[in-house]
Amino acid sequence: MQYSGPLFIGVDGGGSKCKARLEDANGKLLAEAVAGPANPATDFAQTISSILDACHAALQKAGLATELQAQCYVVLGLAGVNIPRVKQKMQEWAHPFASLQVTTDLHIACLGAHGGEDGAILITGTGTAAFASVASEQALFSAQGFPLGDRGSGAWLGWQGVCATLDVLDGLTASSSLSDSICLQLGVTTNTDLISCCIGYKAADYGRLAPLVLQQHAAGDPYASAIVRRGLAYIQALLQRLQQTGASRIAIIGGLAAPLLALLPDTLQQQLNPVLGPPEAGAVALARQHFPEQVL
Amino acid sequence: MQYSGPLFIGVDGGGSKCKARLEDANGKLLAEAVAGPANPATDFAQTISSILDACHAALQKAGLATELQAQCYVVLGLAGVNIPRVKQKMQEWAHPFASLQVTTDLHIACLGAHGGEDGAILITGTGTAAFASVASEQALFSAQGFPLGDRGSGAWLGWQGVCATLDVLDGLTASSSLSDSICLQLGVTTNTDLISCCIGYKAADYGRLAPLVLQQHAAGDPYASAIVRRGLAYIQALLQRLQQTGASRIAIIGGLAAPLLALLPDTLQQQLNPVLGPPEAGAVALARQHFPEQVL
Repeated sequence: MQYSGPLFIGVDGGGSKCKARLEDANGKLLAEAVAGPANPATDFAQTISSILDACHAALQKAGLATELQAQCYVVLGLAGVNIPRVKQKMQEWAHPFASLQVTTDLHIACLGAHGGEDGAILITGTGTAAFASVASEQALFSAQGFPLGDRGSGAWLGWQGVCATLDVLDGLTASSSLSDSICLQLGVTTNTDLISCCIGYKAADYGRLAPLVLQQHAAGDPYASAIVRRGLAYIQALLQRLQQTGASRIAIIGGLAAPLLALLPDTLQQQLNPVLGPPEAGAVALARQHFPEQVL
Repeated sequence: MQYSGPLFIGVDGGGSKCKARLEDANGKLLAEAVAGPANPATDFAQTISSILDACHAALQKAGLATELQAQCYVVLGLAGVNIPRVKQKMQEWAHPFASLQVTTDLHIACLGAHGGEDGAILITGTGTAAFASVASEQALFSAQGFPLGDRGSGAWLGWQGVCATLDVLDGLTASSSLSDSICLQLGVTTNTDLISCCIGYKAADYGRLAPLVLQQHAAGDPYASAIVRRGLAYIQALLQRLQQTGASRIAIIGGLAAPLLALLPDTLQQQLNPVLGPPEAGAVALARQHFPEQVL
């Protein structure tokens, strides 16, 4: 199929996959496609390959020839391009598109959540980060990575659960439903076993214990509740910081967004806004915003 | 010089060095010597080499021929031999001594602190560990390693100081003398700088910031005081746990022992006992205790 006007592609790329969204000149969704990992800080060649795969698959799904990539105005929102030399290398790529803009995954997630407009987001999944884009100024808070920071994140919740269990197994505190269920899930009975089990744990491994900690909090376990309260206090401090940036809309996204949102005070919940779209929709919106500048 | 009776050597080995103490049959100190690293979990060949170097140097310093190693009853107290396969490999070494016993660095430190008798120790340096040896039963608490545990340790104090500083740089809390001095010491001014600076930090790197946190606590900085209070609460819980083991003597050792001891409540300080000797003296005491069994 031929197509004469400009096409817009937004790509959301990260360490596990990359997602492309193809829209026509009128903002109509033509196709979406998913391909492999695209974190240029980890593997540049794979990133290029995944981005091309996702874009070509989207064109194909829309019934358009691969050659039409030359009419595509592309915005990439990628993990890893917060590192200046990684961003520069990405920008120097001899890409086959009409144009290419590179920004962070946080930026397009923020634009997506707010329908392409200014706003702020708190991302809570395995890690914690807060990002605001207000009047062309971007600000990033938290995002320190585990174990330096990421309080309130899935990794942090699971890790705190393990620490509380170690105190129980050391005989420093009384056992509770939290420590019992962590021992059961990990198949350990002694402190030595638990240390051996967790010695090579990364953030994602601890993150898998987060649902259990939240569940124990809901069931009234005092240790789990103390952990969740500390995590929520940090999340609230970050939300207040985002309000101070002057952002008119603030949203929470990420794997733990729904359970944590439900635990925030009602007044704070009412000040938050619903998520309007996914990151790749934010990337397309940015591609469209850039377009008039590029053709004039 | 010739020497006809049995000789006793205690070796304290760890990741940075190994120390040998040579005593005669009457318990008289003949010589001490230091050699390279001796952690068999990290480097077995180097451990063997360092142990031989230290023992030979001690014999030489005492004016004794190297051949007299065949009359030496040796106890090694080594980091890493808490791992069963590492301990077994060490015990299978075709050593040149009259006999060789292998135990942990914690065990000989405990024996050293209590003049070769039963007791318990709390070790607080870069890490935190608590160990009791009572009526042939040994028990280990804490010792989880950073970042899983090690609360109250040098690494934990420094790390908590960095976390508090990140909150200040994120605008979540007001700056204080603690955050100012950490930024000054690390040469950073923004949260991004501080994250980059600490991204590859290991326990020892954070440990280097511990004196600063303790100093800021002494000067009345509220954030530093909150950190130190939390660390001390954990140290106190561990000391109470050691008291529950029935240990008749309890001592605190390690690089942070003196400053932390001074911050404990007077009543608890009075229940603690002075350190009677170094780990290698504990190893020699154990060699002497084993001796009658071996010659009978």
